Amino acid sequence: MAIKVSGYAAKAPKVKLAPLSFTRRDPRDNDVVIDILYCGVCHSDLHQVRDDWFPGIYPMVPGHEIVGRVSSVGNKVKRFKVGDQVGVGCMVDSCQHCEACEQGLEQYCEEAPTFTYNGHDRHDKLPTYGGYSDKIVVSDKFVVKIPKGIDLKGAAPLLCAGITTWSPLRHWKVGKKSTVAVIGLGGLGHMALKLAKALGAEATLFTRSKGKEKDARRLGARQVVLSTDKEQLEAVKGKFDLIIDTVPYRHDLNLYLPTLALGGTLVLVGFLGDVDPMLNTVSLIMGRKAVAGSVIGGIKETQEMLDFCGKHKITSDIEVIKIQDINEAYERMLKSDVKYRFVIDMASL
Amino acid sequence: MAIKVSGYAAKAPKVKLAPLSFTRRDPRDNDVVIDILYCGVCHSDLHQVRDDWFPGIYPMVPGHEIVGRVSSVGNKVKRFKVGDQVGVGCMVDSCQHCEACEQGLEQYCEEAPTFTYNGHDRHDKLPTYGGYSDKIVVSDKFVVKIPKGIDLKGAAPLLCAGITTWSPLRHWKVGKKSTVAVIGLGGLGHMALKLAKALGAEATLFTRSKGKEKDARRLGARQVVLSTDKEQLEAVKGKFDLIIDTVPYRHDLNLYLPTLALGGTLVLVGFLGDVDPMLNTVSLIMGRKAVAGSVIGGIKETQEMLDFCGKHKITSDIEVIKIQDINEAYERMLKSDVKYRFVIDMASL
Repeated sequence: MAIKVSGYAAKAPKVKLAPLSFTRRDPRDNDVVIDILYCGVCHSDLHQVRDDWFPGIYPMVPGHEIVGRVSSVGNKVKRFKVGDQVGVGCMVDSCQHCEACEQGLEQYCEEAPTFTYNGHDRHDKLPTYGGYSDKIVVSDKFVVKIPKGIDLKGAAPLLCAGITTWSPLRHWKVGKKSTVAVIGLGGLGHMALKLAKALGAEATLFTRSKGKEKDARRLGARQVVLSTDKEQLEAVKGKFDLIIDTVPYRHDLNLYLPTLALGGTLVLVGFLGDVDPMLNTVSLIMGRKAVAGSVIGGIKETQEMLDFCGKHKITSDIEVIKIQDINEAYERMLKSDVKYRFVIDMASL
Repeated sequence: MAIKVSGYAAKAPKVKLAPLSFTRRDPRDNDVVIDILYCGVCHSDLHQVRDDWFPGIYPMVPGHEIVGRVSSVGNKVKRFKVGDQVGVGCMVDSCQHCEACEQGLEQYCEEAPTFTYNGHDRHDKLPTYGGYSDKIVVSDKFVVKIPKGIDLKGAAPLLCAGITTWSPLRHWKVGKKSTVAVIGLGGLGHMALKLAKALGAEATLFTRSKGKEKDARRLGARQVVLSTDKEQLEAVKGKFDLIIDTVPYRHDLNLYLPTLALGGTLVLVGFLGDVDPMLNTVSLIMGRKAVAGSVIGGIKETQEMLDFCGKHKITSDIEVIKIQDINEAYERMLKSDVKYRFVIDMASL
């Protein structure tokens, strides 16, 4: 028996989001049914609603930073029980048998993971619908536990902004002796600063806008470098082991490569497209440096990140909105007018 | 008392090389004086003679793949004695105190290493002159031992082509379970195949030219992929842990990135310039892949590479020339008409 759900959806590309009633699948043996409490608003929701990346599936219910409570579980579910506080991120399934999945790197599943929305379930082939809604049904392997004592509203963005920056921090082994820089202070950037600091690294913010100094320091930055100022860039030449580049639009990577230390890596987490202006290889070759990419994170590392955040009392800086205000929130997000993530209180539905 | 030397030099940018008599410094306490037997001809010799990269120092005596015999040593030299067979590569000195030098990575010296030619000695500030000559004077720390039993002519190119491909193979931990691809079958590419195979990896050659199959297999490739053939590229999708890109001119990296395995790296060793066409980030982000760079190698790893080559009987495939034929050799090199490295027999001087 299918579950009736209320949500907000884009009924076609580039139109405003509006209320939608729809159904979710009858829970399978390994499914967890979740009453959604909060859902973060990710920049990629906007891209997908607007059909920027690839042809979308409409109606589209966005949302992949989901926090809620378990309302029922399938027969074979052992890890969750009714009442547990849980999260769901960008993926709700994957092939479960390729090399990437076997390593717990479902985000790189060779058959592609099933995305939380704007995808198709790999079993019944029906569209997936995201977290701008009051209920979701998800395979237990893709549900994570939200540690006790953490603010649930602020925890929602950890499911995407948090794990997207955590995964490269861990993969490139950032720890107490590391020097890390973050490019851009938005949803991803502010999480990268908090997490890098909590991991013991010395964190620096690169920004093109003056006036971010105070906030950046509060979030964990030891220093702020204006990337429009050649002298400031020169002063951090050869400094960083890792640069996490969160900028979601075209920008000049060549500005930042000289600030990497020998063997350092600049990892792109926010920009899908052509590197324009063209990447110059001199800095790479003359310092054994790399430009790499990384996308979200695996389920196991998402749980590790949440446990770490629980222990270190880390959540996202958020502005809570009603779901009726989502279209206005999108407009404000386009102008970077949010500190630093909108989170929808689903009680408003 | 300065040492009189005969050699070949470019007396100005873009002119033909011609005989030159010049002097080398009176040996210092830690210097080794070497009678040069053979010197390899590197593609970068041509670039520097022609002033392609940066303003050159003329007259310019090229050559940084030097093999010879010790003819005398300074008072403080312990590691070498008269008669030893030795090599000198691309560097003859470095600051010796920066972090890179302390790690044995003199090629990334923060103050820049002193190059074997087309540089200035860091003590007397006089120009350095390379191996297209009958004698050279080099600080003992930058002299390496050529293992016994190895063909000296074929060993000369190990000092640049060998170490340039060895260093990334070792840095990215290539071993028995690795799958490695090499782009381009020239001086660097043919060494990369030999070394990758000897390290136990499965090696593949990417080439744009048909007819390289037989030679590539002889040199160690398990397979050859025509990079102009979409089907062949598709067949190796997601395969390689490391791609060593030896191509010295502009080329499309986006062709190769999908053939990297999850977490794989494409390392540029031959091309200084802009990545044109523009690098697309999708492959990087969707597979945690990287584009990196690497230049030559440190002195310690050069010695390790030579010892490895001695043990595995690896030398370069060469064509021996007289120094009088150097200008013709340059023309042939421009047409890739050499299998796979010219080596000057200095007895011809």
